[in-house]
Amino acid sequence: RYHHQRSAGIIGAPFSKGQPRGGVERGPDLIRAAGLLNKLREQGCTVKDYGNMAFEEVVDDEPVGRVKCARAVGSANKRLSDAVQAVKREGHTTVMLGGDHSLAIGSIHGHSAAVGELSVVWVDAHADINTPLTSSTGNIHGQPMSYLLHELQSKIPVLPNFSWIKPCVSAKDLVYIGLRDVDPGEHYILKLLGVKVFSMSEVDHLGVPRVMEETCDYLSAKVKKPIHLSYDIDAIDPSVTPATGTPVVGGLTYREGVYITEHICQTGLLSAVDMVEVNPLRGRTEDDIQSTVSTAVDLLLGCFGRLREGNHSSDYRLPEP
Amino acid sequence: RYHHQRSAGIIGAPFSKGQPRGGVERGPDLIRAAGLLNKLREQGCTVKDYGNMAFEEVVDDEPVGRVKCARAVGSANKRLSDAVQAVKREGHTTVMLGGDHSLAIGSIHGHSAAVGELSVVWVDAHADINTPLTSSTGNIHGQPMSYLLHELQSKIPVLPNFSWIKPCVSAKDLVYIGLRDVDPGEHYILKLLGVKVFSMSEVDHLGVPRVMEETCDYLSAKVKKPIHLSYDIDAIDPSVTPATGTPVVGGLTYREGVYITEHICQTGLLSAVDMVEVNPLRGRTEDDIQSTVSTAVDLLLGCFGRLREGNHSSDYRLPEP
Amino acid sequence: RYHHQRSAGIIGAPFSKGQPRGGVERGPDLIRAAGLLNKLREQGCTVKDYGNMAFEEVVDDEPVGRVKCARAVGSANKRLSDAVQAVKREGHTTVMLGGDHSLAIGSIHGHSAAVGELSVVWVDAHADINTPLTSSTGNIHGQPMSYLLHELQSKIPVLPNFSWIKPCVSAKDLVYIGLRDVDPGEHYILKLLGVKVFSMSEVDHLGVPRVMEETCDYLSAKVKKPIHLSYDIDAIDPSVTPATGTPVVGGLTYREGVYITEHICQTGLLSAVDMVEVNPLRGRTEDDIQSTVSTAVDLLLGCFGRLREGNHSSDYRLPEP
Ligand SMILES: [Mn+2]
Ligand SMILES: [Mn+2]
Ligand SMILES: [Mn+2]
Ligand SMILES: [Mn+2]
Ligand SMILES: [Mn+2]
Ligand SMILES: [Mn+2]
Repeated sequence: RYHHQRSAGIIGAPFSKGQPRGGVERGPDLIRAAGLLNKLREQGCTVKDYGNMAFEEVVDDEPVGRVKCARAVGSANKRLSDAVQAVKREGHTTVMLGGDHSLAIGSIHGHSAAVGELSVVWVDAHADINTPLTSSTGNIHGQPMSYLLHELQSKIPVLPNFSWIKPCVSAKDLVYIGLRDVDPGEHYILKLLGVKVFSMSEVDHLGVPRVMEETCDYLSAKVKKPIHLSYDIDAIDPSVTPATGTPVVGGLTYREGVYITEHICQTGLLSAVDMVEVNPLRGRTEDDIQSTVSTAVDLLLGCFGRLREGNHSSDYRLPEP
Repeated sequence: RYHHQRSAGIIGAPFSKGQPRGGVERGPDLIRAAGLLNKLREQGCTVKDYGNMAFEEVVDDEPVGRVKCARAVGSANKRLSDAVQAVKREGHTTVMLGGDHSLAIGSIHGHSAAVGELSVVWVDAHADINTPLTSSTGNIHGQPMSYLLHELQSKIPVLPNFSWIKPCVSAKDLVYIGLRDVDPGEHYILKLLGVKVFSMSEVDHLGVPRVMEETCDYLSAKVKKPIHLSYDIDAIDPSVTPATGTPVVGGLTYREGVYITEHICQTGLLSAVDMVEVNPLRGRTEDDIQSTVSTAVDLLLGCFGRLREGNHSSDYRLPEP
Repeated sequence: RYHHQRSAGIIGAPFSKGQPRGGVERGPDLIRAAGLLNKLREQGCTVKDYGNMAFEEVVDDEPVGRVKCARAVGSANKRLSDAVQAVKREGHTTVMLGGDHSLAIGSIHGHSAAVGELSVVWVDAHADINTPLTSSTGNIHGQPMSYLLHELQSKIPVLPNFSWIKPCVSAKDLVYIGLRDVDPGEHYILKLLGVKVFSMSEVDHLGVPRVMEETCDYLSAKVKKPIHLSYDIDAIDPSVTPATGTPVVGGLTYREGVYITEHICQTGLLSAVDMVEVNPLRGRTEDDIQSTVSTAVDLLLGCFGRLREGNHSSDYRLPEP
C-alpha cells in the first residue's frame, strides 16, 4: 500500500468570535503542544509551521440583525483566506487549526482561490449551514457553509466585512458526515439543494467503511477535485472529545473518526484540512482536555498517512547478530 | 421519507414491587422532567399526558412459593391493563413509563385487549420469561412474559390477584433483542417454544440494521400486527445507562438503541411502548442519572419519528433578505 | 448449537520481568479471585487449578545488549514450558494466567512440545515481534514471537538461559488481531514474512465477525492444527481495560473481545489460552481494576463455551404446577 509522503503547512487560527464561549482560541497551541509537528515528521511528513495568525481587534461590532460579531468574523476570515492561499501556493496541504468553525469561511475560500473547484467533506455533529436569516442564535460558526455555496447566494443579506467573500462551492461537491443536530432551516436547505448527507442514522445503517466509499465515489464521479476536509471535533462522541462547545450525544467513535481520515488520505486528493472547536475550557477534567486534544492530533496524523498497522521506511534493514 | 405524526398517550406507572430495589418508581417523573412532552410536541407529535397512576397499598403480601409481592403486582397490573385499554381506545400510541418491568403484564394485556393480536419486540438484557416456578429470585419483573404467552399457561401456578390475566401473545409473535443474561430455565423455554432471539451475540454477528430488518420481516411475514415495544433501559450498555437495577456489561450502544426505535417507528405499526427500569437510586452520580434518563427520552423520541438528519415542517419557507 | 464441554488446566504465572512495571505478577490471583474457577464450572467445564508457579530469583541479571532481565525471563519460561507440557499431557486446555506477555515464549513452546504444530492467534495492541536487536526498550514482553518463529532464527543473538528454546511456529500459522502500535522493525518483519495481520484498520473495515471468519479460514486452509490463543488484555480498549502496562487508544470493544473468544471456542480447536498483562497497579481506581479483571474473566469464559444467549443442561426439566 503506497504511503503518501506529504507536506503539511500549519496555520494556527486562535479565533473564537464565531460563537460565545471563550477557550476555543487555545486550540492551535494545545494541538501543537500535544506533539503534532514531531509526530507528523516521524511518520515521514514534511512540516512547515506558519505560526498563529493575529486577528485585529474590532470595536463596535454590534449585531447585524441576529448575527453576532459579523465584522470580526468577516475580517478574521479575510486574513485567513489570504494566509491559506499563500500556504497552498507554497505547495503544502494546509492544516488550519481553529478556533471555531466560522473559520471554514476563510479556509475554504482561500483554498478555492488557490486551486479552483473543490470537494468539501464536512465532518460534524452540525450542518453549519444556517443563513444569517435562519440562524436562531446568530453565532456564525453555525453558518459558514451558507456563505460558501453558490446556490444560497440569494438568501444571504449584506453583512459588514463579508463583501470580499465569493461563493466557491457547489452543493453537489459537498458531503456531510456525522450530523445529528440539524435545525429545521438547515434541514430544509439540505433537502432543497439535494446535499449528500450521511447523518448518524446513515452511519449506523451503512457503517463508516461504506459511508467513506460512497462519499468518495460520489465526489469523484466526474472530476477528481482536491478535497477540503473540514473536521469539527464535535463530530466525535462526547465520551471521547468532551472539550468542545456544543457536544451532542451519539457521535462517531474514535475508531470511526480515524478511519475517515485514513480513507480520505488514501484518495491522494486531500489538499486542506480544518481541525476546529477544540475548547479546553469546556472540559471538566484534565483528562477531558487531554482526550479531546490527542484525538484531534490522531485525526490529523490519519490525514497525513499514519497507518495503524505500522510502517517502516523503504530503506529499513533488519539487524543481524 | 415520510415522517409519521403520531399521538402519544402517556401513562406514568410509579411501581417498583416487581423487584426489591427502591427508586424505580421515580422513573415516570424523571422522564417527564427531562422534557419528554415538549420534545415530542416540538417534533410534531400530539401528546396527552394521563398522569401517574395510583396503586393500592396491599397488606399481608407474603411470598407465594418463591414469588414476591404477587398481590401488589397483580393488582397494579390489572389497573394498568385497564388504563392502557382506555388510552388505546382514545386512539393514542400508549407510552407506559415504568416502574419495573413487571408492568409489561398489564401494559401488553391491556394493549391486546384493545387492539387484538400483537407483535411484541422486547429489548432487554434479560428475557424476563421465568415462570413462578423457574425463578430463583421470585421477583416478578423477571417473569412477565411467562404470564402472557399462550404456550406457557400449563406451567403457571395460581397466584393471588393474577386470575384476571388472559394469555394474549403467541411465541411466534415475540422477538427479543439484546439478551445477554439468560437463566437456564429461560433458555430452555426460549428453545422449547422456538422464540426468535437476537442475543448480543447475534447483534454482534449481524449488526443492528440487519437485526431490525430480520425482526420486522419475521414479525410481518403473514399479517402486520400492531407492535408492542417493551424497552428495558438495561438493554443499553451500563456505560450509558448505569442507573438501573440489574445492569449487565456488553450492552447496546446509545446509537444502536436509538436505531432500533427509528426502525420500529418507520414500520408505521408501533402501537404501544414501555420504557422501564430507570432507577435514579442506582446511579452513583448525577451524571449517571442524567445520562440514563436522557437516553430513555431519546429512545422515546425515536419511537415517535425523530430523525437524526433533522426535519422541517411541510410549510417551512426559507427567509430571503 | 453444540456446546463444547471442555476441561481447563489453569496455570498461574506471576511473573513481571519481561517489562519494567510492578503489579502484573498479581494477575493470576486477581483473575481467580474474580471467580474464574466457579464460573467455568457453572458453565459445565471441568477445571483443575495447578496453582501459581514459583520462579527462581536470578541475581546479576545485567542487560545483554539492550535486552533486560534475559536470564530471569529465560529461566521462568523454561519452567513454564515444562508446566504447560505436563498440563497438556493430562488432557486439559491450558489456561496460562500472566504475568507479562514474555510468558508466551514458554506457553507456546510447551504447548507445541506437547501437541506438535500449532496455529497461533495473537490478540494484542502490539505485535510483540521485536528481535533483541530491533527492540528499542529491551523489554522482552515486546519480543516473544521473535524467539518462536522458525523464519526469524538467523536474526536472534545468543542470550543467557535462552538456549533451550526451539522455534516452533511458522509465520503462516500466525494471525494477529487488534494491532495499533507497531514498531518500524516489527512492521518490516510482518511484511517480510507475510504474516496475516488484522490491525484495527482491518477490524474497522471488515468488522470482527468477518475478521474471525477469515482468521479461521486462513488457519485451517490445509490442516486444522490446535489453536493457541494468546490474549493480551491491552487488545481491548483502555476505556474498558485500563489496568494494563501499555494501553493504546482505539482498541477492541468488550463485545468484540468476547466475540473473538466465542468464535475461537466454536472451532473446537482451542488447545491453550494465555491471558496476560492485567496489572492492577496501572488502574487509577478500584473500578479500573475491577473492569479490567472481570473482562479478562469474561474472555476466558467465552473461550470455554459461554454463550450470551444462555444455556441449559441437557437434562433440564421445566417445573409444572
Ligand atoms: Mn459542530
Ligand atoms: Mn461545526
Ligand atoms: Mn433487564
Ligand atoms: Mn426487563
Ligand atoms: Mn500489548
Ligand atoms: Mn502483548
